[in-house]
Amino acid sequence: LDQGRISEAGGKIAGLHAADLADLIEQIGPDLRGPLIDLLRPSFDAEIFAYLSQSLREVVLDQLEPKELAAAVAELESDDAIDLIEDLDAHQQREILDNLPPETRAVVEEGLTFPEDSAGRLMSRDLVSVPQFWTVGKTLDYLRTEADALPEDFYDVFIVDSMRRVVGAVPVSRVMRQKRSVRLADILTEDIRTVQAITDQEEVAFLFRQYGLVSAPVVDSAGRLLGVITVDDVVDVIDEEAEDDLLKLSGVPDTDIYRAVLDTTRSRFSWLFVNLLTAILASGVISMFETTIQHIVALAVLMPIVASMGGNAGTQTLTVAVRALAMRELSEANAMRVVAKEALIGTINGALFAVIVGVVAGLWFEDRLIGIVIGIAMIVNLFIAGLCGTLIPLGLARLKIDPAVASTVFLTTVTDVVGFFAFLGLAALILM
Amino acid sequence: LDQGRISEAGGKIAGLHAADLADLIEQIGPDLRGPLIDLLRPSFDAEIFAYLSQSLREVVLDQLEPKELAAAVAELESDDAIDLIEDLDAHQQREILDNLPPETRAVVEEGLTFPEDSAGRLMSRDLVSVPQFWTVGKTLDYLRTEADALPEDFYDVFIVDSMRRVVGAVPVSRVMRQKRSVRLADILTEDIRTVQAITDQEEVAFLFRQYGLVSAPVVDSAGRLLGVITVDDVVDVIDEEAEDDLLKLSGVPDTDIYRAVLDTTRSRFSWLFVNLLTAILASGVISMFETTIQHIVALAVLMPIVASMGGNAGTQTLTVAVRALAMRELSEANAMRVVAKEALIGTINGALFAVIVGVVAGLWFEDRLIGIVIGIAMIVNLFIAGLCGTLIPLGLARLKIDPAVASTVFLTTVTDVVGFFAFLGLAALILM
Repeated sequence: LDQGRISEAGGKIAGLHAADLADLIEQIGPDLRGPLIDLLRPSFDAEIFAYLSQSLREVVLDQLEPKELAAAVAELESDDAIDLIEDLDAHQQREILDNLPPETRAVVEEGLTFPEDSAGRLMSRDLVSVPQFWTVGKTLDYLRTEADALPEDFYDVFIVDSMRRVVGAVPVSRVMRQKRSVRLADILTEDIRTVQAITDQEEVAFLFRQYGLVSAPVVDSAGRLLGVITVDDVVDVIDEEAEDDLLKLSGVPDTDIYRAVLDTTRSRFSWLFVNLLTAILASGVISMFETTIQHIVALAVLMPIVASMGGNAGTQTLTVAVRALAMRELSEANAMRVVAKEALIGTINGALFAVIVGVVAGLWFEDRLIGIVIGIAMIVNLFIAGLCGTLIPLGLARLKIDPAVASTVFLTTVTDVVGFFAFLGLAALILM
Repeated sequence: LDQGRISEAGGKIAGLHAADLADLIEQIGPDLRGPLIDLLRPSFDAEIFAYLSQSLREVVLDQLEPKELAAAVAELESDDAIDLIEDLDAHQQREILDNLPPETRAVVEEGLTFPEDSAGRLMSRDLVSVPQFWTVGKTLDYLRTEADALPEDFYDVFIVDSMRRVVGAVPVSRVMRQKRSVRLADILTEDIRTVQAITDQEEVAFLFRQYGLVSAPVVDSAGRLLGVITVDDVVDVIDEEAEDDLLKLSGVPDTDIYRAVLDTTRSRFSWLFVNLLTAILASGVISMFETTIQHIVALAVLMPIVASMGGNAGTQTLTVAVRALAMRELSEANAMRVVAKEALIGTINGALFAVIVGVVAGLWFEDRLIGIVIGIAMIVNLFIAGLCGTLIPLGLARLKIDPAVASTVFLTTVTDVVGFFAFLGLAALILM
């Protein structure tokens, strides 16, 4: 797809799914995006936004007129519209809201009153609810006659009491198979899990995963039915959540590969800066032993091995602990068992590598004592790595700090400092 | 919950969801698991297995008699039963299969013929399909009269031709609202995405995510309908997939925090061993400059800074690239743009840190030249880190090797070797 052929591409583009169009916008070069968006402009499908990365959303939004945008947004389901509008600045929000049909506008504005990343923003308002005293027959008649006011396709009928509080749900297939005289109250599933509108989306994802839910009604603080969350809405949240852990552990604020160079550079700078401070601290430890190194230069050659093995063993433990915390497999109940276990694993691997590295170093520099020194330092550092790889994320979690964000820096500081100090300190004691 | 109170806990346990029981089994100490399982034994809910980690599944399986197990498995839906049985060894599989009712057994055995991690293993066979020439009325009668042979709750009616090939789907809510005389062929949704039974589950997860699917029919190579996958089955796959990237990048074969100490130690050993070889290689580079270090011991103090900054900047880039490859945001189409961008980002950050570190090092050791040397080495290493952070995973992906597994080792080898070589080499050239 190049500049010359973009106009004849119009025909092919018309048949594509919004997700594929979003991919196309993302993967063609920046200079072709303008013409491509012009091609899509006459009947811009706002669903494309749902599949675009954040930075490209902004690029596309800037190219569309507020009216075109409002027309496109009006076609979206309420949860998708909110998802799009919530990230805009106040001025842009106002412009789009003003151009929306009053009804859509009211729904979107109500949605925006819920906290960001809450169930209230995630839920769809398109649902079917009926009173608990209705019969199957009355429900069927209602569904047939009110078809226009109800969502096009739906899977569950929610049953509410006179205060609109949820008392249960009945899948459509079950309503259909019962005799008309059966009361809904007799066939409903009571054991459904409701979600408060202000619940954080990570908590929602946990509930869906924990109980294998397909859908869950969302209620206000008085238990009144507001909307419904289905598992497909939760898939994005689960994706984000897992990605968050991965990125934060590696010190990347976001993976948006379409972001501009300078933005990306700036966002990564701060993590590298913190790491620089850590590295300087480790250098400070080394400089305490300058004279020792000057006498035995082999120490300078070998010292990165101790630090690097500690860092790697610690990262293994840390990753497991951070993930287990996120999946709620690691809790107060088993914390001490896990810490003890990881410290033990560190010590065993430390002992194994002490032998290997000790022999290699002893032969390399023809000095048995240097082998013994690096061996002991290895055991100490891998024990500390196992201990801190669990204690640091547990400690941060208890302080309500996201362990994925800060753990790596703390851990590598510890393994570098302990690694250099144990090795060089022992060398100064034993070899000098 | 301790030894003494476990018997009186029976009453409380009875009301718990299988997922919560699984959590309980996981989080109590190993010595209490036996009594707890005995408590659950009389009516063991096989759904608990679906929520247990792999290593604890085996522990629990070993405690149950084959007959108890078969009775529990017979209660499961076919996809859950397959998920449980597929991980057992051949002998255990046979024992359970022999004790299953013939019908369940046939379904499970058929499921096991599909490759591991394929759509065929993921799908459920509980679905409703009707011929395309039927009317709404005939369909409704069929659903009511054949209720016993059909799944209890279902959301879509699949429409098949005379060869049982899928031609479309109609949500139950839509069937119900139409007049009896309407033909299904006129109201079906044709634009549904079917999945081949042998398709890998990661590909399935990609389809669901890409197109926001709620369910998809699974077909054989001739297009005949075999089963259905719903989005809740895919949630686990998405979880696994994201977790896989995280773990592999950190060199952890699995996160199972309930695994025994020696198993875990062994599984982590090999990654650490590969890292040891890398570290020794880096030490080899340092030893080339032993005389230089002996003359200017400041080099030993400062050299870990260059290597560590390169490793961290490289890891940032690598994580973004591996994740983008997994999410299919990085492809042949934009590979070179992303590589160039990351190399540029590395160079810019390299220049910024060159100034900071150069000034710090120059002041610390009262030698401007040492500041200049470390500055240049920093730019070189962060440029290489950006370049290799993208080229390594791209190269592995092209060789059909999972980039998450091997990238980190290659990358840190490069940033360590380049970091030490650039810094010490320049120092030997300029300072000696």
